[in-house]
Amino acid sequence: NRQDFPEVIYCAGKTNQQIAEIFLNLFNHSQKNIIASRATKENYEAVLKLVPTALYDEAARIIYVQRDNTPVDDKRFILVLTAGTSDIPVAKEAGLTAQLMNNKVEYCFDVGVAGIHRLLARKDLIDKANVIIVAAGMEGALASVVGGLANKPVIAVPTSVGYGASFGGLSALLAMLNSCAAGVAVMNIDNGFGAGRLASMINHMR
Amino acid sequence: NRQDFPEVIYCAGKTNQQIAEIFLNLFNHSQKNIIASRATKENYEAVLKLVPTALYDEAARIIYVQRDNTPVDDKRFILVLTAGTSDIPVAKEAGLTAQLMNNKVEYCFDVGVAGIHRLLARKDLIDKANVIIVAAGMEGALASVVGGLANKPVIAVPTSVGYGASFGGLSALLAMLNSCAAGVAVMNIDNGFGAGRLASMINHMR
Amino acid sequence: NRQDFPEVIYCAGKTNQQIAEIFLNLFNHSQKNIIASRATKENYEAVLKLVPTALYDEAARIIYVQRDNTPVDDKRFILVLTAGTSDIPVAKEAGLTAQLMNNKVEYCFDVGVAGIHRLLARKDLIDKANVIIVAAGMEGALASVVGGLANKPVIAVPTSVGYGASFGGLSALLAMLNSCAAGVAVMNIDNGFGAGRLASMINHMR
Amino acid sequence: NRQDFPEVIYCAGKTNQQIAEIFLNLFNHSQKNIIASRATKENYEAVLKLVPTALYDEAARIIYVQRDNTPVDDKRFILVLTAGTSDIPVAKEAGLTAQLMNNKVEYCFDVGVAGIHRLLARKDLIDKANVIIVAAGMEGALASVVGGLANKPVIAVPTSVGYGASFGGLSALLAMLNSCAAGVAVMNIDNGFGAGRLASMINHMR
Amino acid sequence: NRQDFPEVIYCAGKTNQQIAEIFLNLFNHSQKNIIASRATKENYEAVLKLVPTALYDEAARIIYVQRDNTPVDDKRFILVLTAGTSDIPVAKEAGLTAQLMNNKVEYCFDVGVAGIHRLLARKDLIDKANVIIVAAGMEGALASVVGGLANKPVIAVPTSVGYGASFGGLSALLAMLNSCAAGVAVMNIDNGFGAGRLASMINHMR
Amino acid sequence: NRQDFPEVIYCAGKTNQQIAEIFLNLFNHSQKNIIASRATKENYEAVLKLVPTALYDEAARIIYVQRDNTPVDDKRFILVLTAGTSDIPVAKEAGLTAQLMNNKVEYCFDVGVAGIHRLLARKDLIDKANVIIVAAGMEGALASVVGGLANKPVIAVPTSVGYGASFGGLSALLAMLNSCAAGVAVMNIDNGFGAGRLASMINHMR
Amino acid sequence: NRQDFPEVIYCAGKTNQQIAEIFLNLFNHSQKNIIASRATKENYEAVLKLVPTALYDEAARIIYVQRDNTPVDDKRFILVLTAGTSDIPVAKEAGLTAQLMNNKVEYCFDVGVAGIHRLLARKDLIDKANVIIVAAGMEGALASVVGGLANKPVIAVPTSVGYGASFGGLSALLAMLNSCAAGVAVMNIDNGFGAGRLASMINHMR
Amino acid sequence: NRQDFPEVIYCAGKTNQQIAEIFLNLFNHSQKNIIASRATKENYEAVLKLVPTALYDEAARIIYVQRDNTPVDDKRFILVLTAGTSDIPVAKEAGLTAQLMNNKVEYCFDVGVAGIHRLLARKDLIDKANVIIVAAGMEGALASVVGGLANKPVIAVPTSVGYGASFGGLSALLAMLNSCAAGVAVMNIDNGFGAGRLASMINHMR
Ligand SMILES: Nc1ncnc2c1ncn2[C@@H]1O[C@H](COP(=O)(O)O)[C@@H](O)[C@H]1O
Ligand SMILES: Nc1ncnc2c1ncn2[C@@H]1O[C@H](COP(=O)(O)O)[C@@H](O)[C@H]1O
Ligand SMILES: Nc1ncnc2c1ncn2[C@@H]1O[C@H](COP(=O)(O)O)[C@@H](O)[C@H]1O
Ligand SMILES: Nc1ncnc2c1ncn2[C@@H]1O[C@H](COP(=O)(O)O)[C@@H](O)[C@H]1O
Ligand SMILES: [Mg+2]
Ligand SMILES: [Mg+2]
Ligand SMILES: [Mg+2]
Ligand SMILES: [Mg+2]
Ligand SMILES: [Mg+2]
Ligand SMILES: [Mg+2]
Ligand SMILES: [Mg+2]
Ligand SMILES: [Mg+2]
Repeated sequence: NRQDFPEVIYCAGKTNQQIAEIFLNLFNHSQKNIIASRATKENYEAVLKLVPTALYDEAARIIYVQRDNTPVDDKRFILVLTAGTSDIPVAKEAGLTAQLMNNKVEYCFDVGVAGIHRLLARKDLIDKANVIIVAAGMEGALASVVGGLANKPVIAVPTSVGYGASFGGLSALLAMLNSCAAGVAVMNIDNGFGAGRLASMINHMR
Repeated sequence: NRQDFPEVIYCAGKTNQQIAEIFLNLFNHSQKNIIASRATKENYEAVLKLVPTALYDEAARIIYVQRDNTPVDDKRFILVLTAGTSDIPVAKEAGLTAQLMNNKVEYCFDVGVAGIHRLLARKDLIDKANVIIVAAGMEGALASVVGGLANKPVIAVPTSVGYGASFGGLSALLAMLNSCAAGVAVMNIDNGFGAGRLASMINHMR
Repeated sequence: NRQDFPEVIYCAGKTNQQIAEIFLNLFNHSQKNIIASRATKENYEAVLKLVPTALYDEAARIIYVQRDNTPVDDKRFILVLTAGTSDIPVAKEAGLTAQLMNNKVEYCFDVGVAGIHRLLARKDLIDKANVIIVAAGMEGALASVVGGLANKPVIAVPTSVGYGASFGGLSALLAMLNSCAAGVAVMNIDNGFGAGRLASMINHMR
Repeated sequence: NRQDFPEVIYCAGKTNQQIAEIFLNLFNHSQKNIIASRATKENYEAVLKLVPTALYDEAARIIYVQRDNTPVDDKRFILVLTAGTSDIPVAKEAGLTAQLMNNKVEYCFDVGVAGIHRLLARKDLIDKANVIIVAAGMEGALASVVGGLANKPVIAVPTSVGYGASFGGLSALLAMLNSCAAGVAVMNIDNGFGAGRLASMINHMR
Repeated sequence: NRQDFPEVIYCAGKTNQQIAEIFLNLFNHSQKNIIASRATKENYEAVLKLVPTALYDEAARIIYVQRDNTPVDDKRFILVLTAGTSDIPVAKEAGLTAQLMNNKVEYCFDVGVAGIHRLLARKDLIDKANVIIVAAGMEGALASVVGGLANKPVIAVPTSVGYGASFGGLSALLAMLNSCAAGVAVMNIDNGFGAGRLASMINHMR
Repeated sequence: NRQDFPEVIYCAGKTNQQIAEIFLNLFNHSQKNIIASRATKENYEAVLKLVPTALYDEAARIIYVQRDNTPVDDKRFILVLTAGTSDIPVAKEAGLTAQLMNNKVEYCFDVGVAGIHRLLARKDLIDKANVIIVAAGMEGALASVVGGLANKPVIAVPTSVGYGASFGGLSALLAMLNSCAAGVAVMNIDNGFGAGRLASMINHMR
Repeated sequence: NRQDFPEVIYCAGKTNQQIAEIFLNLFNHSQKNIIASRATKENYEAVLKLVPTALYDEAARIIYVQRDNTPVDDKRFILVLTAGTSDIPVAKEAGLTAQLMNNKVEYCFDVGVAGIHRLLARKDLIDKANVIIVAAGMEGALASVVGGLANKPVIAVPTSVGYGASFGGLSALLAMLNSCAAGVAVMNIDNGFGAGRLASMINHMR
Repeated sequence: NRQDFPEVIYCAGKTNQQIAEIFLNLFNHSQKNIIASRATKENYEAVLKLVPTALYDEAARIIYVQRDNTPVDDKRFILVLTAGTSDIPVAKEAGLTAQLMNNKVEYCFDVGVAGIHRLLARKDLIDKANVIIVAAGMEGALASVVGGLANKPVIAVPTSVGYGASFGGLSALLAMLNSCAAGVAVMNIDNGFGAGRLASMINHMR
């Protein structure tokens, strides 16, 4: 059924050898898509030796196999927004995760609040989306603005982008938690995977 | 339409006079339900003088008028869980908010992880729910356990319940943000209203 | 000359007696305006006994005497914006301070980012202002949006408005420090006086 | 006697030379087991030149000599649980420490709360154990669940496993300190050695 | 059996009415001791009306009924130490909890490290104790010194005693977590109950 | 017009390739100065291949093209002060930014408060400056002293210079936010660019 | 001998009864001065009943008896400086403590760094003093400036004076710890007593 | 005169070239000792080329020239204590600094509180010392114990030795600030230089 969740491997803290073996095992004993998140190029090379059809998205840091052919509902898409270009890796981790869970995903990068008209110019996308993911570092203000524009669930992912008093994403995290816009929920700093997973759950609700 | 959102007043930092007047104004110029959150008994007495049909839920700290007769879909309910009894006010803020937005709400209190069998005994409720809200203070572990048991969106609300190193809810907040269970999103500390609002949005998706 | 700065008393931590005597002293030995900030009603009553012409602005918590008749340049005004109604006291502390330093001040309250169109509707004011002060609590996002819309100095004052993870204004403070909009400088939490003082300095530059 | 404690060297901040010499000295002047914790492979190579019978457990980062033949009480064992695979090094530091102090140790890895049934499936082990050590990072919730299931001392070791708002183990540390389950005591982040030492003390009580 | 645990009510956040009813219920349906912790005098007066034999220890903030006549093993006692006089309430919460769980308890107050000879003068007590609880605020150093003197489990309870950079007990908490003495485990700030409970568990091990 | 702002590229988190292309694009499609901040030598080499007239200031970490010939008002200069020599890179980032925005800039390094007479010896510069930027790490006290000496806007930039309890610039940041001198506004830690940009805005006001 | 230390009672957390009895006891069994710090007026009234010659300094919050007639060396004095008027209570706690330990004490209030000339005007006092205590809140910069002016020990006491990002004295504490002036040592926030005690020790060295 | 202070260079953040030139300059234009602190071996090699008589203490990280022949008062010595071996570099930075300022220095390493008898065995040294420096990381408890044993100034230097919840020295810093022993003052984390400088000042008082 649509809710079917791909098998997921979290690579951080695992050896190439471990990752490749778990990947092969999932490949052989399931028919689902496979996601290995937080994967390095080296991890990918190890997987490739055992599973030659595995693909790698460097920006999203995901190794994957996409073999689930369930048709995707093109009218219900997840919109992934970023405040800046440095937030794109987190956005792609979220987007590819959602895509591998059979969702249509649209992206819109670099629409941070310091140039609010770039965001407003994409109001149509915000209006048509079914669920929205916002990845933003520094002051994390994009989540509140989008939360105010959209009458639908907004999943806010603070990123560790920034320096000084951004304290590794703390600044964006606190801002998003304190959002004065209703309908905004927050993930851990840089947790694109979790955002994609939750957005997929919501997007498949009927 | 179902998505129709009641009018909401956030009482903290407003005078009795201000609250009562805004309430009356909404009452006169809209046909929607009305929610005044974080309201004290004194706030209520002031409102009552201008809007005699207003009701007050002391636990939830909400003054409200419920006049929207849109039929509620009884098969899709929001489940609100708490770890302890002290988390109940936050849970009720969430639940009544969702109810006033035309959702069926079920509660299940005091199912914290230190007595995991009380939670497991309610696995049926978790399975039947459409969206789940978890309110927990102290170590906030309930969100992770529920996130693992449920294949549906879980909205985690850390509460300020606790003492010492709970640091006013920080402990539960960090725990929930770091949840190893997929599908868990986090609200601000004690933000029952936001959780109810988001749960309602998700629950109305078709 | 225009830069002339009124005499200022910071009341917090002073007794009624001390405040009244310093106030009288300034009143007798200077021709400037007088500002006593962070003043309570009780402080005012004590001052009034010694200086019957003293006025009190309760919202701004300022006792003052305005006797400097230097004409104010009406074409160069300072705009004071707030995200919500609870930020108004800080905004008024800033505004009245600037006014007593011979500036024209305009206010625009409750234009927080969760309803971005209310802010955009006042784009004319932003365009015409010479200097802008933004007072916002919670996620403090208004400073970034205004900083992006305005090509002029923006003085951001985080307020202690909020609860939970706002940590007494820390959330807004960090957000403002990390603003991705150029031209934004930050004051201490709730420091309306400092914002008004700096805005006045900038507004008088020729 | 049973309480006899092996000699312990804390390697962090010592040179290869220093470690090897202290190790040799203990080897020559005592009959006890020897533990050198937080040891690198390089440390081991230096020790090996002076004490050829020394062994090295890479996962536990411990160099040791086991020569104490006091029989171990097999009916009283210490159970070491981990939430995930990345917590295993800390768990092994604890386990090997306890073992070198003449305790039987059982391990059970990867029984984190997001999959509570894997933990419940090992309820028998929890029931039979005399003392339990729980190593968990991220949200650290495992300690509370185990504390609730077990009527025996639970020693909780927060690990630095996680990212973003785990803040190097702070999240798990706070969660464990705030555990609502009675009988849970907490060690420093990643302090497997201390947990093994305390568990051994308790396990030898008669 | 000896491990039998009294029934416990945590009063913080419960009404007089709720506490009295739960207390009466436990009184009627069990034969165990009853502990109601964090109780105020008002709580006690409410309980007294329903359970006239209930007692109250104001320092320990505990309402209790002691009716379990299991003989206590007088040779195995729990020693409760405090650094200063202000730590006594926490020490008594720990001690009375342990006593109501059928343990002999000895106290030794005001033996903080700034006068180390007062502590050393009680070395005999430390040597004879089976388990030790240390309650200390400010710099929390007593736990380390005792941990070094004693070859037995030490349960350290940081207290919120202090001012300035003690940050409500954080200073003592961090110090205790970083104790360089082996065998020291840490409880939440001011958690005397948890310390007494764990000490009792350990003291009953055979 | 004078307010004309150069095009700015923030290099952190961009590839050499991306930076060089954006730089070339700005070079070809605008007549303004170009600033690429937080640039490494490697970044510069990539830019140089596409834009041979680009220059690099290693201390300021800025790649730039200066081709705007608007005459600079030499009577209104921005003064950039540092407490120590390690603060110079931040000061130069601020100064070069302002210079590329058509401002005259004067520097005065190593006038920290521990040798107050070195600062007082430059009182003339402080008096003549139109706007002042203060870059200081460690205790950040220079901002307050300068704020007290100068009756003009002071832009304080905390730097990450220091060790131990400077916590990466937090110490200087908090000190500057709490400055008891009126007219001091604060930027993010190490944000020389923002300080230069704001100083330029203020310096061009008429 | 001169080093003779008065008897000291720390009143915080003691009852009137306890304080009065300890005071009387010291009064009867010693010939030294007596200091009871952090004392309220109520504490004093209780003491007065038992020791009619006891005095009370309200600002310093000290109850004392001064009966030690050892002649004081008038050429070696301790200088106590404050940044503002709100720091005076801490300064007086330090000064009276030192005085009761047989030191000559000079005060100089309100010489904060925002008006550096008021401080420089008292350079003679700084030059003549033997030891200097600096009490300052907010940005705590006075310690560094004095440390630079004086070639003698400077004891810095951060005070909790301030608001917002002063975080109860944290701002001044960090600033003082990071002082770039050599010879500055730091006490706990508001710890005037400790500063007076240490200054006295140093002042009596020969 | 005795108070004469050597010339000091703080090497962190300076180039080899800069350090060598400043060193040579001081060497040529003064007759005092020279200290270059926080120096690397590379820094030393650069200095050596210009000043062949310069020496380097690797543990203390100090390059120095000792040519001041003022006789040292051998009866007044500064005692430098450490809790562990990892604190020795900080202790040596303090000790060599004091020595180069014409003080006799005694060391006593590894006398941490977990083995209190090793400290008590050196009570004679504590009694004879004129000033004491305590360097300790982790729980920093040594400062309090020494402060209680000694009736003389104790300068506490928290070190960054530790892991987990030591948070880079914060744990020891807070413990030392909260010391319940009178006469203890605190330096920045790892600031051996400052401790040596202040100890020297005090040791030269007559
Ligand atoms: N990038 C990520 N961040 C957080 N959690 C993740 C991430 N990727 C995978 N996970 C979770 O980690 C689990 C797999 O962990 P493991 O069994 O250690 O490979 C999955 O079920 C996911 O819920
Ligand atoms: N609300 C305020 N916040 C921060 N600083 C203030 C405030 N009001 C006045 N001040 C400053 O405090 C100084 C007066 O302090 P005082 O001499 O203690 O009355 C003035 O010169 C102002 O710079
Ligand atoms: N002072 C205390 N601190 C922490 N936990 C406590 C305390 N007193 C009781 N508890 C725990 O709280 C539980 C009872 O909570 P409740 O059901 O809310 O009354 C008990 O089983 C104890 O484990
Ligand atoms: N290790 C150190 N930690 C803190 N301050 C130091 C240290 N070494 C030297 N200093 C101070 O730094 C000043 C020299 O700084 P600089 O002019 O940058 O070389 C000296 O006067 C000392 O007061
Ligand atoms: Mg919305
Ligand atoms: Mg789930
Ligand atoms: Mg702008
Ligand atoms: Mg248990
Ligand atoms: Mg021990
Ligand atoms: Mg000024
Ligand atoms: Mg000095
Ligand atoms: Mg002492």
